[in-house]
Amino acid sequence: MSQRIGNALIGQSGGPTAVINQSLVGVIESCMAAPEIGSVFGALRGVQGILDENLINLGLENPADLDRVARTPCAALRSVRKKPTEEECERMLDVMEAHDVRFFFYIGGNDSAETAFLLNRAAVARKYELKLFHVPKTIDNDLMDTDHCPGYPSAAKFVAQAFMGDNEDNRSLGGVKINVVMGRHAGWLTAASALAREGNGAAPHLIYLPERDFCIDAFQDQVADAMDQHGRCVIAVSEGIHDSEGHFIQKSRSVDAHGNVQLSGTGALGDLLADRVRACVGINTRIRADTFGYLQRSFFGVYSRQDALEAREVGRHAVRVALEDKVPHGSLIIRRAGTLAKYAVAYGVTVLENVAQKTKVMPEQYLSGDHDVSPAFLDYLRPLVGDLPKIGRLSDLPVPRLLS
Amino acid sequence: MSQRIGNALIGQSGGPTAVINQSLVGVIESCMAAPEIGSVFGALRGVQGILDENLINLGLENPADLDRVARTPCAALRSVRKKPTEEECERMLDVMEAHDVRFFFYIGGNDSAETAFLLNRAAVARKYELKLFHVPKTIDNDLMDTDHCPGYPSAAKFVAQAFMGDNEDNRSLGGVKINVVMGRHAGWLTAASALAREGNGAAPHLIYLPERDFCIDAFQDQVADAMDQHGRCVIAVSEGIHDSEGHFIQKSRSVDAHGNVQLSGTGALGDLLADRVRACVGINTRIRADTFGYLQRSFFGVYSRQDALEAREVGRHAVRVALEDKVPHGSLIIRRAGTLAKYAVAYGVTVLENVAQKTKVMPEQYLSGDHDVSPAFLDYLRPLVGDLPKIGRLSDLPVPRLLS
Repeated sequence: MSQRIGNALIGQSGGPTAVINQSLVGVIESCMAAPEIGSVFGALRGVQGILDENLINLGLENPADLDRVARTPCAALRSVRKKPTEEECERMLDVMEAHDVRFFFYIGGNDSAETAFLLNRAAVARKYELKLFHVPKTIDNDLMDTDHCPGYPSAAKFVAQAFMGDNEDNRSLGGVKINVVMGRHAGWLTAASALAREGNGAAPHLIYLPERDFCIDAFQDQVADAMDQHGRCVIAVSEGIHDSEGHFIQKSRSVDAHGNVQLSGTGALGDLLADRVRACVGINTRIRADTFGYLQRSFFGVYSRQDALEAREVGRHAVRVALEDKVPHGSLIIRRAGTLAKYAVAYGVTVLENVAQKTKVMPEQYLSGDHDVSPAFLDYLRPLVGDLPKIGRLSDLPVPRLLS
Repeated sequence: MSQRIGNALIGQSGGPTAVINQSLVGVIESCMAAPEIGSVFGALRGVQGILDENLINLGLENPADLDRVARTPCAALRSVRKKPTEEECERMLDVMEAHDVRFFFYIGGNDSAETAFLLNRAAVARKYELKLFHVPKTIDNDLMDTDHCPGYPSAAKFVAQAFMGDNEDNRSLGGVKINVVMGRHAGWLTAASALAREGNGAAPHLIYLPERDFCIDAFQDQVADAMDQHGRCVIAVSEGIHDSEGHFIQKSRSVDAHGNVQLSGTGALGDLLADRVRACVGINTRIRADTFGYLQRSFFGVYSRQDALEAREVGRHAVRVALEDKVPHGSLIIRRAGTLAKYAVAYGVTVLENVAQKTKVMPEQYLSGDHDVSPAFLDYLRPLVGDLPKIGRLSDLPVPRLLS
């Protein structure tokens, strides 16, 4: 039968998601079930934990605890944003060799795929036998070769439900409401705001994505037009909007003492746009800006069931592929199978080079004009997010006036 | 048997909540069931709708649609922020008289209670027979005479789950995270962040409420201490924090072109505090600020079941009290019955003067030091919010180091 090959090591990297621990637990439970794999280790804070030889034993966790971990948002192994140097790759291989690690699974986005690529190159050069797989996660949905990324559907659901409620809030009190959504280079998450309309809403009335250049004068005109048409206006804006020269809109205002252009974790873009709207619709109009911030990736209790299921399965499939021994390394992908009426997925693997540091922006057929998405995008997104709550509205049957 | 007395009119006012429509539907269904009441009208945009004679017929809605409305956040009748003049009160009474309105229910906070008070005074002076009741709602939980306010428990649940997830996010990536929570004059909602600790979290490490003066130098020291102690720091800050002279902290930075001090719908306070933290913990520490904003009162899909139930019941009870004819006007209140182990409530009524424009801040026994809440506060809050999701954590069993 199967022979023991060596131990497995798992790390998590980059910004967390609501379901990144589903993938972690998927990898752990499949490793534990595999006779080819001995111990299952975790690296605390991704590559930093490997460099520091800061490893924990995951094989001693019991299944009930693991299941609770899987349902908890954010990186249970803790995370890191770090690109290793060549020397660091050598050090990591030293640590792996010392612990007889022959399987390495790195859960993260395109930066993490690059780390995996660099480490794999070093392993090949050294002729160190290592099955190395990148397990995708990102709320940005911007990884190449995959239909979509685990983590994105849950964040998209949060954004959709946020816009559904916010549309009712705006309908209650009127005025202009600007909501800034995460997504530095690609508009996938901001675009998910359009799903709020499915629940019988009109909002968002305007959607601005980094796939288009942002012109603040045109923006002012479009808001004024929407106010004329609807008497109110809800706007979705990606944090990554930029002018025609590629400069972030935020940058033009940025007064950060240290010269950093920071997009998330600040209300600067929303406040800037609110000031510009004030200039065009007048000071008597109620104008508010919210920046959804880290709630989009970390809020506890809102997630897509399909996303949770796929994130778990993509972790399991990574181990399956590693054991099959057809390819020694790669990045896991999700392919859409089934039909428009009946959603289904298949799991596969692509080469690390295709994913490392690359960004998949929204294709032209998912956009509509310069401030909306297309019906084709909603067809793409709907089965990932699943059911949304339904808005209830009064019939507004007028009572005849009796006074002048 | 009961004789028909006249028609009923309902309005909603002030900032929406997740369950304000439960109260609306509670009033509607009880009015429809009462033989004393003829038609059931709604005023669009509160007092503005009455002034404009912009009424809708609520008695023709079917129960299934109403139930869906009840489960939808924000004001289904649309809302307004308006204090009527004496002349406007007379005009409203003219409209009511023309439509034979003998029951008026106004759902709102302390400003809305003042509107009810003013209108009632005008009705008494005119000897116009009107049963007039204020039905409480506010996420701020700051109304007098009531144990708590419908709308608050659901917003508190949102804040608790947000902090639970954010604590995991901060645990994943480290650094300082500041979250600005709604509440201009009272800290009830910001204090609810402490509930996040119940789910096995440490955060928030620091909680700043408007019940205490805020000193930015002390704040910097406390953040530095927390970083030393925990290696990371999650902070809950009320948007209404102020210095010892009562000036909002935000104001000192405010560069609003029109001189308005706006607290919600802007990221200014969070950004200001982040800058100050940067100055004390250094630029190499990850520092982020989120302002939770309107999601706290409008997010669709997160609410407290107990809150929804009580909001519905408080609406029904308002009609019950109006029909009993013991008091002709007042503001509905919730009394806490039962024990610490078994939560129960009773509904009652207080005089409008007690609620109008007054603010109930957190009592001393619910505070602890100058940046935390007490266990007594958590005992108060827990049954209102109900169950929270449980955090899962790895055991972090260390693997012995083999390398130097």
